[in-house]
Amino acid sequence: MTSIVILNGPNLNLLGRREPEIYGSSTLGDIEELCRAAAEPHAIAIEFSQSNHEGELVELIQAATLNGHNAVVINPAGYTHTSVAIADALTASGLPVIEVHLTNIHSRESFRANSFVSPIAIGVICGFGPVGYKLAIDAVAQMLSTNRS
Amino acid sequence: MTSIVILNGPNLNLLGRREPEIYGSSTLGDIEELCRAAAEPHAIAIEFSQSNHEGELVELIQAATLNGHNAVVINPAGYTHTSVAIADALTASGLPVIEVHLTNIHSRESFRANSFVSPIAIGVICGFGPVGYKLAIDAVAQMLSTNRS
Amino acid sequence: MTSIVILNGPNLNLLGRREPEIYGSSTLGDIEELCRAAAEPHAIAIEFSQSNHEGELVELIQAATLNGHNAVVINPAGYTHTSVAIADALTASGLPVIEVHLTNIHSRESFRANSFVSPIAIGVICGFGPVGYKLAIDAVAQMLSTNRS
Amino acid sequence: MTSIVILNGPNLNLLGRREPEIYGSSTLGDIEELCRAAAEPHAIAIEFSQSNHEGELVELIQAATLNGHNAVVINPAGYTHTSVAIADALTASGLPVIEVHLTNIHSRESFRANSFVSPIAIGVICGFGPVGYKLAIDAVAQMLSTNRS
Amino acid sequence: MTSIVILNGPNLNLLGRREPEIYGSSTLGDIEELCRAAAEPHAIAIEFSQSNHEGELVELIQAATLNGHNAVVINPAGYTHTSVAIADALTASGLPVIEVHLTNIHSRESFRANSFVSPIAIGVICGFGPVGYKLAIDAVAQMLSTNRS
Amino acid sequence: MTSIVILNGPNLNLLGRREPEIYGSSTLGDIEELCRAAAEPHAIAIEFSQSNHEGELVELIQAATLNGHNAVVINPAGYTHTSVAIADALTASGLPVIEVHLTNIHSRESFRANSFVSPIAIGVICGFGPVGYKLAIDAVAQMLSTNRS
Amino acid sequence: MTSIVILNGPNLNLLGRREPEIYGSSTLGDIEELCRAAAEPHAIAIEFSQSNHEGELVELIQAATLNGHNAVVINPAGYTHTSVAIADALTASGLPVIEVHLTNIHSRESFRANSFVSPIAIGVICGFGPVGYKLAIDAVAQMLSTNRS
Amino acid sequence: MTSIVILNGPNLNLLGRREPEIYGSSTLGDIEELCRAAAEPHAIAIEFSQSNHEGELVELIQAATLNGHNAVVINPAGYTHTSVAIADALTASGLPVIEVHLTNIHSRESFRANSFVSPIAIGVICGFGPVGYKLAIDAVAQMLSTNRS
Amino acid sequence: MTSIVILNGPNLNLLGRREPEIYGSSTLGDIEELCRAAAEPHAIAIEFSQSNHEGELVELIQAATLNGHNAVVINPAGYTHTSVAIADALTASGLPVIEVHLTNIHSRESFRANSFVSPIAIGVICGFGPVGYKLAIDAVAQMLSTNRS
Amino acid sequence: MTSIVILNGPNLNLLGRREPEIYGSSTLGDIEELCRAAAEPHAIAIEFSQSNHEGELVELIQAATLNGHNAVVINPAGYTHTSVAIADALTASGLPVIEVHLTNIHSRESFRANSFVSPIAIGVICGFGPVGYKLAIDAVAQMLSTNRS
Amino acid sequence: MTSIVILNGPNLNLLGRREPEIYGSSTLGDIEELCRAAAEPHAIAIEFSQSNHEGELVELIQAATLNGHNAVVINPAGYTHTSVAIADALTASGLPVIEVHLTNIHSRESFRANSFVSPIAIGVICGFGPVGYKLAIDAVAQMLSTNRS
Amino acid sequence: MTSIVILNGPNLNLLGRREPEIYGSSTLGDIEELCRAAAEPHAIAIEFSQSNHEGELVELIQAATLNGHNAVVINPAGYTHTSVAIADALTASGLPVIEVHLTNIHSRESFRANSFVSPIAIGVICGFGPVGYKLAIDAVAQMLSTNRS
Repeated sequence: MTSIVILNGPNLNLLGRREPEIYGSSTLGDIEELCRAAAEPHAIAIEFSQSNHEGELVELIQAATLNGHNAVVINPAGYTHTSVAIADALTASGLPVIEVHLTNIHSRESFRANSFVSPIAIGVICGFGPVGYKLAIDAVAQMLSTNRS
Repeated sequence: MTSIVILNGPNLNLLGRREPEIYGSSTLGDIEELCRAAAEPHAIAIEFSQSNHEGELVELIQAATLNGHNAVVINPAGYTHTSVAIADALTASGLPVIEVHLTNIHSRESFRANSFVSPIAIGVICGFGPVGYKLAIDAVAQMLSTNRS
Repeated sequence: MTSIVILNGPNLNLLGRREPEIYGSSTLGDIEELCRAAAEPHAIAIEFSQSNHEGELVELIQAATLNGHNAVVINPAGYTHTSVAIADALTASGLPVIEVHLTNIHSRESFRANSFVSPIAIGVICGFGPVGYKLAIDAVAQMLSTNRS
Repeated sequence: MTSIVILNGPNLNLLGRREPEIYGSSTLGDIEELCRAAAEPHAIAIEFSQSNHEGELVELIQAATLNGHNAVVINPAGYTHTSVAIADALTASGLPVIEVHLTNIHSRESFRANSFVSPIAIGVICGFGPVGYKLAIDAVAQMLSTNRS
Repeated sequence: MTSIVILNGPNLNLLGRREPEIYGSSTLGDIEELCRAAAEPHAIAIEFSQSNHEGELVELIQAATLNGHNAVVINPAGYTHTSVAIADALTASGLPVIEVHLTNIHSRESFRANSFVSPIAIGVICGFGPVGYKLAIDAVAQMLSTNRS
Repeated sequence: MTSIVILNGPNLNLLGRREPEIYGSSTLGDIEELCRAAAEPHAIAIEFSQSNHEGELVELIQAATLNGHNAVVINPAGYTHTSVAIADALTASGLPVIEVHLTNIHSRESFRANSFVSPIAIGVICGFGPVGYKLAIDAVAQMLSTNRS
Repeated sequence: MTSIVILNGPNLNLLGRREPEIYGSSTLGDIEELCRAAAEPHAIAIEFSQSNHEGELVELIQAATLNGHNAVVINPAGYTHTSVAIADALTASGLPVIEVHLTNIHSRESFRANSFVSPIAIGVICGFGPVGYKLAIDAVAQMLSTNRS
Repeated sequence: MTSIVILNGPNLNLLGRREPEIYGSSTLGDIEELCRAAAEPHAIAIEFSQSNHEGELVELIQAATLNGHNAVVINPAGYTHTSVAIADALTASGLPVIEVHLTNIHSRESFRANSFVSPIAIGVICGFGPVGYKLAIDAVAQMLSTNRS
Repeated sequence: MTSIVILNGPNLNLLGRREPEIYGSSTLGDIEELCRAAAEPHAIAIEFSQSNHEGELVELIQAATLNGHNAVVINPAGYTHTSVAIADALTASGLPVIEVHLTNIHSRESFRANSFVSPIAIGVICGFGPVGYKLAIDAVAQMLSTNRS
Repeated sequence: MTSIVILNGPNLNLLGRREPEIYGSSTLGDIEELCRAAAEPHAIAIEFSQSNHEGELVELIQAATLNGHNAVVINPAGYTHTSVAIADALTASGLPVIEVHLTNIHSRESFRANSFVSPIAIGVICGFGPVGYKLAIDAVAQMLSTNRS
Repeated sequence: MTSIVILNGPNLNLLGRREPEIYGSSTLGDIEELCRAAAEPHAIAIEFSQSNHEGELVELIQAATLNGHNAVVINPAGYTHTSVAIADALTASGLPVIEVHLTNIHSRESFRANSFVSPIAIGVICGFGPVGYKLAIDAVAQMLSTNRS
Repeated sequence: MTSIVILNGPNLNLLGRREPEIYGSSTLGDIEELCRAAAEPHAIAIEFSQSNHEGELVELIQAATLNGHNAVVINPAGYTHTSVAIADALTASGLPVIEVHLTNIHSRESFRANSFVSPIAIGVICGFGPVGYKLAIDAVAQMLSTNRS
């Protein structure tokens, strides 16, 4: 069965409580549910985690390959702009990567426009809030079914 | 009835013939069909156009407001990186804007990483080929139905 | 009889409807009237046009010389920051050029501070709304009467 | 009665003698007269001064508020590009500010294109020689009468 | 029979009248004749056009492939430095591209040293006035005959 | 009772042993004592921790809000210049933040002059060695008592 | 007896009247009183002055050494970012220098993040309003008593 | 007995599996063996570790001094370009530092050319694959024996 | 009789052997023959040399004036981007200069886009391989015959 | 009789007392004597002044022309790098200007390498301590005697 | 028999006499001996030269291929940062290149961090003094024996 | 007896013939005579040379130390802006260095404002034509006599 890993970076465990006027009122639990609902019609299994630790995210990405997952959807949050280690892990994984951001990183502080992950991702989705995760899963499903056929 | 305008910038009329190893084998007609199929379940009407002319794109955006459309999905192609006029028209439209790119503009020449449209868009989707249009329509549908409720 | 061409760039046809909190409530028709009223005491004829097309603006500038006009007042709007073609046409016209902006381009996004037109203009007026056009006409009138004498 | 302060920065006391091919042949006295003539039909009183001292200009701006003036027209000359103190004083004054330059600062050395005053001014007029002061007074008159009404 | 398209960008229709001390006294008609004379000994047919419109140039380039031409010689003029759309069209055409400029763009304003076209051209010729077109045709002829053999 | 969290970033556990000519001879234990002594007269409770892990610092900041603390004093040390995640956590905490550095970061390597934390802090204190912590506590005490009154 | 000079740069004479939402409601007289109150328990004499003139500030700094003062606390205000002369005078004074700013200069316009004084100061305190002066005096007292012992 | 610590940064635990066309087919275990073989003739003991966590690497470096090691050989991998904390820990260790990279970081993405570690290292070796570790050990041996004599 | 000097910079003596996929299979001897063949119909004498030494190239340029030549065609190769001395010698020669490159320097490493020679040349030809030399000679012939007439 | 004005900028009144290891032990009085001694054999009169005020220096330069002096030797000290007003006054004076610095400004902080005065000076002398003034006077004498003959 | 060329750039003939606190006390003769000793166990022949001339270094590199050598070890010294010609010669040689520096170029002036050679080298060794040459020879030996097998 | 070496860089052998409106009408022979005349009263011997070769200049500088000279006066001409090798040789010489330029390099092309030599020179003299050499010799004489006493 096809399965994908959905990874969430630092401070995303605060969702719903953290600056709701920017990040919305959904909690990370809500987003996990939304992801499972989105994946079900595609018959895709979901592994969903969050970490505030760069090193843990690196290791979750490494595990994705070891555990035979088929793709990584990642919202690297604050590490988007500062982590070569995560980008290197993603490249090393050999898996297709989709980058998601809740907010439109192009309309915020200028340092948020630089992402170490984007150049090695298949695609990037930003600005749609939790819906972005659903779009990413749909994109992955489409891509994987195309590759299979 | 809800309706959205889908605008395509320069050279997108060549799709399917132009560098298929980069842009894929779908024609713009294929993408229009894909969009109509994607919009139907949301009961959203689609107005789909393409132009190689910056000024025409400005005017198509202006018409979107006049004609009472509810959102703009735009792939500004080469004008993404060079047109303040299109970004100004989008801002002036007062409509929510979704920016779509077939390719991942962050893994190509560095000048493609700058978009005049992104800072004034709701969100950006890039790198998923024609599927990106479907994702954009889903995002618009979700957003409009949320706003209505 | 002395005559000047007043050119307006992209999206200025939206004036009055477009972001009135930034651009004010006058329409472009109002501004044309204001210009005619301002020109009359100086016995200056006015040719007033707007285009959303870079190429059309280039050709309107070319026509200014052919038709024997004496000066160009131009609000290049979004093309201010991106059009070498318009700046080249203005230089080629051999006519004195006055650059006008409704808003103060120095207190907005940083990319608006760069103008390809300014270095080849006689002078620049920005931030005064429609009144800026009247000031430009007064400046032209003064300059042309000085040159004649 | 409405009154405005017109301030002139360093070396403007040399006008008429200093590089007339760049700055023209009018003296600062001529410009003061021109200003009074321009202000009269608007029933605006003029306070006109010049200083070569950054600190004195700061204090002249501070005095403008204390003495109940309604606006500041300033040609900061060489301090345009180097004085945060003057820009801070103008902001602190709470008065509308019009920036004037005799020459077109965009067609000279590149360091002259940066102005600390422009971002906090209502508007900027440059390149028209002494006529620029008249235009500034007309703009102020228009603005103040609009505000009153 | 071998044929090439020769495209001319904005303001080149003014040649002979526009700043002759920079651009020389030949008209665009003279250059067309010069091109036909240069192409004849190589038995190469010439299609020669000029447009002030970026979108039209994009479409003329698109037509070059459709109509079976063998190469494009282009003087993009002011669009050289600002048009990604034209560069994208040239890449998409799949044809060899020669970039020509009448003047030496490296000894003028610094923004003229950047060309979006150069990186995707076969070669660049600048500074030789109308003769540059003849050199470009000779280069194309040589290249095409080499490819054939 | 009012309480504040005092956080110390990487390598600060080495204080007293690490380059004493730069960082002085106080240990982190000495500083903790100094902080408790400084907080006592203000009747402020102190929670004092250090971590070499970016992710742990993020979680210590998250805990500050959860545990009902009233402010954060942070010396982010090496993460000052590289951690968006910590700055995001501080913003998300909704608490007033004081940034402290033992050394004057403006007289060292140029990369130390950039802090991701400073723009979202209430204020910054640097260069005073351990005394800086006492100053920060005094500032917090003053600020909180003002807010209460 | 130990004594320190407290210097205030341009526009600080306006405190209390100038943009109170940014600079607070204390006047400079209030701050002087606050400083005297803060210095008294340390048995430190205070010389407190303000000037809008860069040259006068230079001379007040020069006088600090001549008059046998033991340290300089300076809020250079607008000259922070533009005055090499003041920084040179501070270096030449041979006295320890503390730089104070009422506001957090790192969360305002980007040009305010550069200080010519910071690299030659002992330490910097910004963002705490008038309290910053008290903190600076406490820091000086601590430093001077340490040096004496 | 002389001993050195050999530290490996994030993703190096993947060696042999990760992009072998870039990083080669040796595993990290192979490299550890290679290091022990290289150290033996110099009678140098080796402590060899890897971590994906920046904070753990900081603490491994801190432990190097505490445990009386004589030098650090470090391949900081992705943290090379982003970690001030690791560079600070290395400086604080007071030990000689050798920086090693498997690949030539100067012929890859431009961001890899910047290393926070290089300025505080004794020397840098890059591009030789696993052999680079042996060279580093030889260099350390040579350096330590010279210092002893 | 008209004569021109053709100068070739470092490593061009390797032509035919050096990276033929970039530089082609012609040797420098082939290019010299091609040049003589191209010059003959114009009755232009050719002096053709190559040097790997910047100083020798400077002296060959100096000799061009002393020996009464009429123009310099130069392919400065690696010195294009690094030699002010050669550019100064060319300016000092008082002769018209044509710059030639075998490859299109705008589609290679970014440092190759900067040429110290281009701003002082009449024109530049790049990307056409050996044919570029023939084009340069044709351009010189045309230019010299125009000047004579 | 020929006469020159020698102007000294901020903090130069401290010479001999200020950082003698950088600026030497001569006082400004010593330098004035040295200048008079140097000028005497050339029969040149000297007017020697110092000011810490930018505005005063502007006015001393303005006075130089009014009083019929023949040249200006200026050590602008800290204003070298920050004063457009002084550079404008020097240009306006119409007099030849020699810029002198006691220290080698190219081997100090990088901001000292930029001088607003240098581009409008005849020549610059730096790094020779007080002897630099003598060299400047010799240069002026030579230049003025050449101009006279 | 395997042989390698070891090339030394400008001023390396001064070794032992030139700034020994930076470059050590070994002469270039000592280094040549050290290289021969290092090469012997690998049965590698050494050709060792030094030149102060960029052109001569280019030609020594060209000769390396002609004479059938197997690799180049080069310390380009001052030409590291300024010579495209040497980097081009190395690329053209088709030989593996090892770059060596006696000092750690990353802890000196910032311009020394840029090397034209590094991007085209196999690897880089810097900071180990003469030992770096031995390391380079060991690396070459390892690499060549691997390639052979 | 005291002696100094005076070195002249590329194209200075052309003096008198090369662009006399920029470089004046003196030949290098005239300057040598001027130098000998200037040195005689100081009882300083002169060794005067010119080379167009960077490597030769490096070796002339190396010889200066070997031959026991006391200082170097150098006009590096075009190599000023591009030669690290010459700057390294000057540093290695251990001799005081005076840098001279005939023209004011600060009022020419911007690349001429950067000198690799200036940061390691005692002082710099530019803009005075051949007189600059005399000033340099006077400065050296003064400096050497001061050092002796």
